[in-house]
This record gives sequence, C-alpha cells and structure tokens, in this order.
Amino acid sequence: MKIIISNHYEEMSQTAAFHLLGYMNKDRRVNISITAGKTPEKMYEYLIPIVKDNLSYTNVHYYNFDEIPLKGKDTEGLTISNLRKMYFSPAKISEDNIHKLTMDNFAKQDNTIKQDGGLDLIVMGLGADGHFCGNMPGTTRFHDFTTMIPIADEMKQPLADAEMGGDISLVPDYYVTMGPRSVMAAKNLILIVNGLQKAKILKEILEGPVTENVPASVLKLHPSFTVIVDRSAASELNCNV
Amino acid sequence: MKIIISNHYEEMSQTAAFHLLGYMNKDRRVNISITAGKTPEKMYEYLIPIVKDNLSYTNVHYYNFDEIPLKGKDTEGLTISNLRKMYFSPAKISEDNIHKLTMDNFAKQDNTIKQDGGLDLIVMGLGADGHFCGNMPGTTRFHDFTTMIPIADEMKQPLADAEMGGDISLVPDYYVTMGPRSVMAAKNLILIVNGLQKAKILKEILEGPVTENVPASVLKLHPSFTVIVDRSAASELNCNV
Amino acid sequence: MKIIISNHYEEMSQTAAFHLLGYMNKDRRVNISITAGKTPEKMYEYLIPIVKDNLSYTNVHYYNFDEIPLKGKDTEGLTISNLRKMYFSPAKISEDNIHKLTMDNFAKQDNTIKQDGGLDLIVMGLGADGHFCGNMPGTTRFHDFTTMIPIADEMKQPLADAEMGGDISLVPDYYVTMGPRSVMAAKNLILIVNGLQKAKILKEILEGPVTENVPASVLKLHPSFTVIVDRSAASELNCNV
Amino acid sequence: MKIIISNHYEEMSQTAAFHLLGYMNKDRRVNISITAGKTPEKMYEYLIPIVKDNLSYTNVHYYNFDEIPLKGKDTEGLTISNLRKMYFSPAKISEDNIHKLTMDNFAKQDNTIKQDGGLDLIVMGLGADGHFCGNMPGTTRFHDFTTMIPIADEMKQPLADAEMGGDISLVPDYYVTMGPRSVMAAKNLILIVNGLQKAKILKEILEGPVTENVPASVLKLHPSFTVIVDRSAASELNCNV
Repeated sequence: MKIIISNHYEEMSQTAAFHLLGYMNKDRRVNISITAGKTPEKMYEYLIPIVKDNLSYTNVHYYNFDEIPLKGKDTEGLTISNLRKMYFSPAKISEDNIHKLTMDNFAKQDNTIKQDGGLDLIVMGLGADGHFCGNMPGTTRFHDFTTMIPIADEMKQPLADAEMGGDISLVPDYYVTMGPRSVMAAKNLILIVNGLQKAKILKEILEGPVTENVPASVLKLHPSFTVIVDRSAASELNCNV
Repeated sequence: MKIIISNHYEEMSQTAAFHLLGYMNKDRRVNISITAGKTPEKMYEYLIPIVKDNLSYTNVHYYNFDEIPLKGKDTEGLTISNLRKMYFSPAKISEDNIHKLTMDNFAKQDNTIKQDGGLDLIVMGLGADGHFCGNMPGTTRFHDFTTMIPIADEMKQPLADAEMGGDISLVPDYYVTMGPRSVMAAKNLILIVNGLQKAKILKEILEGPVTENVPASVLKLHPSFTVIVDRSAASELNCNV
Repeated sequence: MKIIISNHYEEMSQTAAFHLLGYMNKDRRVNISITAGKTPEKMYEYLIPIVKDNLSYTNVHYYNFDEIPLKGKDTEGLTISNLRKMYFSPAKISEDNIHKLTMDNFAKQDNTIKQDGGLDLIVMGLGADGHFCGNMPGTTRFHDFTTMIPIADEMKQPLADAEMGGDISLVPDYYVTMGPRSVMAAKNLILIVNGLQKAKILKEILEGPVTENVPASVLKLHPSFTVIVDRSAASELNCNV
Repeated sequence: MKIIISNHYEEMSQTAAFHLLGYMNKDRRVNISITAGKTPEKMYEYLIPIVKDNLSYTNVHYYNFDEIPLKGKDTEGLTISNLRKMYFSPAKISEDNIHKLTMDNFAKQDNTIKQDGGLDLIVMGLGADGHFCGNMPGTTRFHDFTTMIPIADEMKQPLADAEMGGDISLVPDYYVTMGPRSVMAAKNLILIVNGLQKAKILKEILEGPVTENVPASVLKLHPSFTVIVDRSAASELNCNV
C-alpha cells in the first residue's frame, strides 16, 4: 500500500490523472475500470484535453464496475450515463473501447475480463459507509465475484434522492457490481479520496481490521494498492503509514 | 486464482519445483520465501540437483516466513533448521543469500523486505486448520504485518509432540510469523497441497467465505495466486474453478 | 539475459516445457508465439499430456511468427501445418485460440497483437545461419515489423529440399515473418538451442557484436531473454555468462 | 514504443515528472537512473517540491548512468555534481539512496545493479549526434556493458567548452558510461527530447535503421520504451507512429 497525500482536491485530481496516464501510456491494449461520482470530476477535467482526439490512447479499453438501471426505462444505466457525461463524451472515447457492465451480461463479466487480458487498473472512490464500487456493507461478501444485488425497500428513497431527483418510481429492484474478489483480481488498484468528511472512514479502512462490515478495508491486502488523497481526508491517519 | 491439479504427489512436487525455477531464472536479484514442513520435501528433491553448484542461481535470496525458537537454546530456530536440512545445505545455498527472520528482527522484517525490493514469490503449505505460515486461527488478524505471537499453554504439548520429539521444555513462549498483510504484499503466491486429508480444508479456503477463522481463505483475494495440488487434495473441489 | 544449461536434449525440452507452463498458468488471457521445426519436438511431447483436455489452459492464445505458403495450393502454410501436427492437434487446442499469421493478414498483424494485449512470450529456435523466426541474414533489418519477404531463386531448391520433399514447384515467391522489432516488442523471449552443430552460432549471437548479418545477435538486448540450451550447444560459451 | 507529444517544453517536463512519479510510487525499493544536462531541468523543478522532505519516496534509489571525472581533482565527477545541483540537493535525497557510478567501480556496476534488483527505469536525453548516456557514435558497440571510454584528443576542447568553462586542463583521458546492453537491460526506458534542433535526429532514431552510428536508434527495440517530446522535436515524425 502506498499513500500519496496531496495538498488539496485540485492537486489530488491532477496526481490521479497522471497516474492513470502512466498506465494508459502503453504500446498495447490496456484495460481500466474507472469510477463515476463526484470525487473524480476534476480528474476527468485534467484527462479530457490530453486524451481527446489523441490516437495515442486508442489502446485503452474502459469498463464500468457497477451499474444501476432506471426502472421501466430502456436507456443506459446511471453509471455509464454519468461516465459518458463526465468523460467518454467530452474525451470522444470510441464506442469500441467502452465495455458496458449491464443487468444482462453481469454473470459473464468476470470471464469476459479474463478473456480480454484482465484489468490493468481500477480507479475507485470511497463511500462514507466504507463501500467501494457497489459493495455496500451487508450486500456482498469478500469472496463474491460480479453479482446482482437487491435494493432494500428502505434504501430506495435515499437512492432516488441521491441519483434520480427524488423520483422513487425510477429506482430499480436490483443493481449489479463487481464483487470484492473481482476487484482484488485486477493488477493495480487506485483509491481516490478527498475531504474532511471522509477522514474517519479512510482511517478505518486503512488502519483498522479487515471486515465485511467495512468493505473497503479489504483493499489494503492488494499488493499494488495506491491511495491518492488530499490533506483533509488524510488528517486522521497515523503519520508513519 | 489458478489451480493446477497434478495426478499425484510426485507430479505436484515437480510442477511446484519448475514453477519456482521459473521465478528464480531471472537476470537480477529475486527474493523468495519458502516453506518448511513435509509437503515441500519432494519439491526440494527436484530443486537440489538443479540449483546445487550452479552459479545461475546466485541471484536468488531466501527468506523464512516464520520461526519457532527452541526455549533455552542458543541455536537457530525450528524453521530455518528444517530449511537448512531439506534444502539450503544440500543445495549449497550461500549464507549471504539466506535472510533469517528471528525473534530479534521480526519488527523490522517488513521494512527490510521492502528495502530489498519486496518478495517476488512466497511458496506455502496449508495447515489442516486452515493456517498458512504461522497464522493459526485465533492468532493473527488479516491486517497484521509480521508479528510475535504467544503460544497458548494448551498448544505447547501438541507442538512439542509435532516438532520437538515431545520435549515440552523446549517449547518457547512466543514464535514469529509474517502476518496476512505481509504475505498478501508479495508479488506472487504459490500454495502447495497434497493428500486426501487436506481435501476438505482446501475446498473451504478456495470456495468458502473469507474469514479470519480460516486464515488461508484470504489468499484467494491475491491477484497472482497459484494453487498446485494433487488429485486427492482437489477431490472435493467444484470442477469449474 | 539468463542462460540455463541442461545436460541433454531431453532435459532441455522439459525445462523449456515447464517455463512455458509457468507463463501459461495465469488466470487471464495469455498470448504466446511458439516455434515449429525440429528443436521443440520433445518440448511439445512434454506439454501435450498436460495441456490436452485441460480447461486450465483455455486462457492461452497461440500465434505463429512466420508462415511459408505452398505455391498454387489453397491449404494452410508450412508453419501452421507443422504446429498443428506437433502440438495443436494432439493437444486439442481450440481453433478459437489459434491466431494464424498468413500472407493475407501480415500487414495488420502487429496491430492485431497490440489490440490483443501484446505477446507475453515468444519461444524460438536458432538457425545455423543465426536466423530467428523468418529473419534470415539479408532479409529483414532490425527496425522491421512483420513483413513479406521474397524468396531468392537460389534459395528455392534448398527450401524445397528442407520442407517440401524436394518439390520446387511448391516453393512460393514470398513468405511472411514477424520482424526483429515485432519480436523485441514481446514481454518475454525464450530461445531453445541444442546440439554441437549449433555451438558456434550460439556463441556468436550471445557473445559477439549485434549485427544484422547475424540476426539473432540482437536478442541479447531484450530485458527478459532466457536461453535454454543443452551442454553441447553451450560448449563454446565463456563460463561466466 | 509509445510516443507522447506535449505542446511545449513545460508540458513535456510535467508529463515526464509525473511518469517518473508513477514509477517511484511503489511500496518497495525502486531503482532509477536519471539524466543530467539541460533537457531535464524543468522536470526536476516539478519533482523537487513533491519529493523534498517526503518520507513516501525513501524507497527510491538513484544511479547515474555515466560520469566524467575532472582531471587532477579529487572531487566528484561532472554528472553526479550536476545531478546534485539540479535535484539531489534541493530534493534532499539521502546519501544512502545515491549510488554513484565512478571510475573506480564501473567494472562492477552491472553486477551491482543486478544484485540491487535491476533498474526499474532509466530516464535519458538524446544527443544531437544520436548519443544516449555516454554512448557517442564510435565509442561503444551495442553489445557493450558498462565501460570506460578514452576521450579522443580532438574531443577535449569541445568537451572543455561544453562542460568545464573552456579549461582543457580539466578534461580527463577517460570517462565511464553504462553501455547499450546495460541500458537495454532496464525494465523501462523513458527518453525526453525537446526543441526543433532535435527534430531531425529524433526522426532518425525512431524511424530509421538500427545502427551503431546512431546509438539511440537501438532504443526502439526495447519492449517498454516511452518517448516524451514537445511538438517541436516531434515536428518531423510521421503521424502514425
């Protein structure tokens, strides 16, 4: 585990972007899985002008690691829509290089990724409850591969509020996510975390026990795990990590 | 996780030996940690004639991953003594290439290994109780690095019987072991398991949940984990692993 | 560069087979390019019983690195035919895992291999004239990628004698080969050489200057180049390689 | 080979710095060899504030790849002095992490590096005559390891003018450099090149034949070779590199 502490969100985003580019700058196919959400917004802003219209990056293939479909809609899910808006569209990523995880293909996804050569890198954020990808506490076990997860009734309104403008009629009954075992099988992992409100959970996952109650606590067992954080998120960590 | 099923112990040992040689055959320093005990005996028999007096393998550095000292004796511990007898002495490994983990240096061992470039490979056996290295159920936690562990009174006679010809006066109060976190930090892991009496625990660690009650259950989360077993040990596994 | 000297052809073949298996035993797609000809015959004999009907090796994809078509015939070329006979057919390799280099696709082959993730390994033999793959002295330059090469008139009868039972009418006007640059782009290279008649050229390529007159002399510049030879082939090498 | 074209020297330097950091951000010893001279000046400016007083980078060990001693002086050579001034001193790199190549140890340097685990990365500049490190045309051969090279009489005044304020009395009779074979043995290579005056030689080494007359022409045969250049230096390259 390597921890890189940046002075602020801007610097953290730039550091993450350049680490990503380091993996992307190969002379052969590279498979990476990247995160939606708020944390990576600035990271994509750094990447877009570099990647857009640049033939040097046609070797990079993208995979989403979770997906929440919209109930009763025939449109793409929340994750891939968010990734398109933040990165794929402005960076003009070719459809041939976007490999969607969906409700239909999730059961074959681990095998597909193996046949594609495995994931070179996953870039993830950290949830306030210690989740990574769609591995919320109480949903997956550490030995789970990519899987479909029921959305509990009491979670539907919070999810609608967070992601669907409050419209609970759009909340599906299930979503899909790469499980802890699928994530740990990637060659390299990067976790990006910023803000004081993540300081406590970051300390917990990096310094506390490995437990399924705090899913991201398992990530520190990966032999190539890099944590890129700002000073606020790192503020509760022991110095000598 | 990759499972290689050999027809019998001989073939398993040869397969393990050749995998080890694959890692050893580099043109630069290679750091490996290898196991004592009964399982690897035949593997060392294959290795010895190849490695002995062979300048091609002076690049290989060896680390023991646990150590049990003999109480009141100023001699080397059980693990390193066993490794000397089985491999280091007959293979004429130079003292310069043997890096001993001891009661005195364990607290610095993780850092030493990092400064030496990290472990390229650990070859381990599997205990009937699901232990790997010295990580017996109830001793270490998954987040532990190399550590010193007290030997419970009720474990002393069994240990004396197993390792010290029954002489309980030789059983120490503590032993040392690389913890789960130290092991998972290695670049590659190999687990060798043979015999029908290991079939049930092998199934449990490979197919069951990741739990500290069965320490080796965590190994399947490593991105480069190879399991080399004979047909007997594999007899309870699901076919499509 | 790492040189592994075996006592005889049998041992060399076994060593090469097990090195190959070390690369094949991954939990994701592995791309390897393997050689036809006499040198690898015994190596394939070791591999076949291990690989045949073994689902553990469906992750391995095979590429031929050169091809000589038969003039006026609509059949597969000499290289792929030879590989089928020696290995693909007896080992029951699926057609989905055999990626043929042909007269039709050679211009796209370097790009195809990049899109497939690059070659993890190439296993080659050594020609008496210092050639590797189809890179005979005077045909390719070190900066050449995969290319089509005219067969000089004076080479046609020797080629017919060596490969087509003397029937010069079958000798084509062109053949294709991965060039030095394509070969050097692979992640790992293995060269297998046996017999006293190769001792002089082996010494020349390993200890002499890097020159296009002796094409295989360039291989020693690859950062992961392993030479597996028998004592006879190694007999002229300086000891402290 | 991967070519990354930046818009100008500043951007090129930042890109190079972040690539370097990508290699440095490991949780174990990392060995890198970095270049002195004018090209990397700005790259070091980016690195210094990140590396200085940062315990996260104590795992990085530095090696110089060439050295020119000052005649009759008992001081450090030109390369290491230049590296100290530009990077080691302002970045407060510990002496324990600086491994000097000197006139005294050059014959053992290749072996030392192997015993240290090999070089993870070499960052080099490109000479107007196509040289890399101290491999000027006509000095080393492609098969040379680290070596001592006589300085021809006619080269002494130009060298004095370039490096010693014109004082020819300081020009030594010999200098040392890692040879092409030592450089190609590193796991990864980065070449940084900027400015219109390098456009022609850059085109020659990347697109022309591999020849000892243009030493850097060999670098394109390395399987992990990254070229980081500005638009001016790239201006003569074919687009579809």
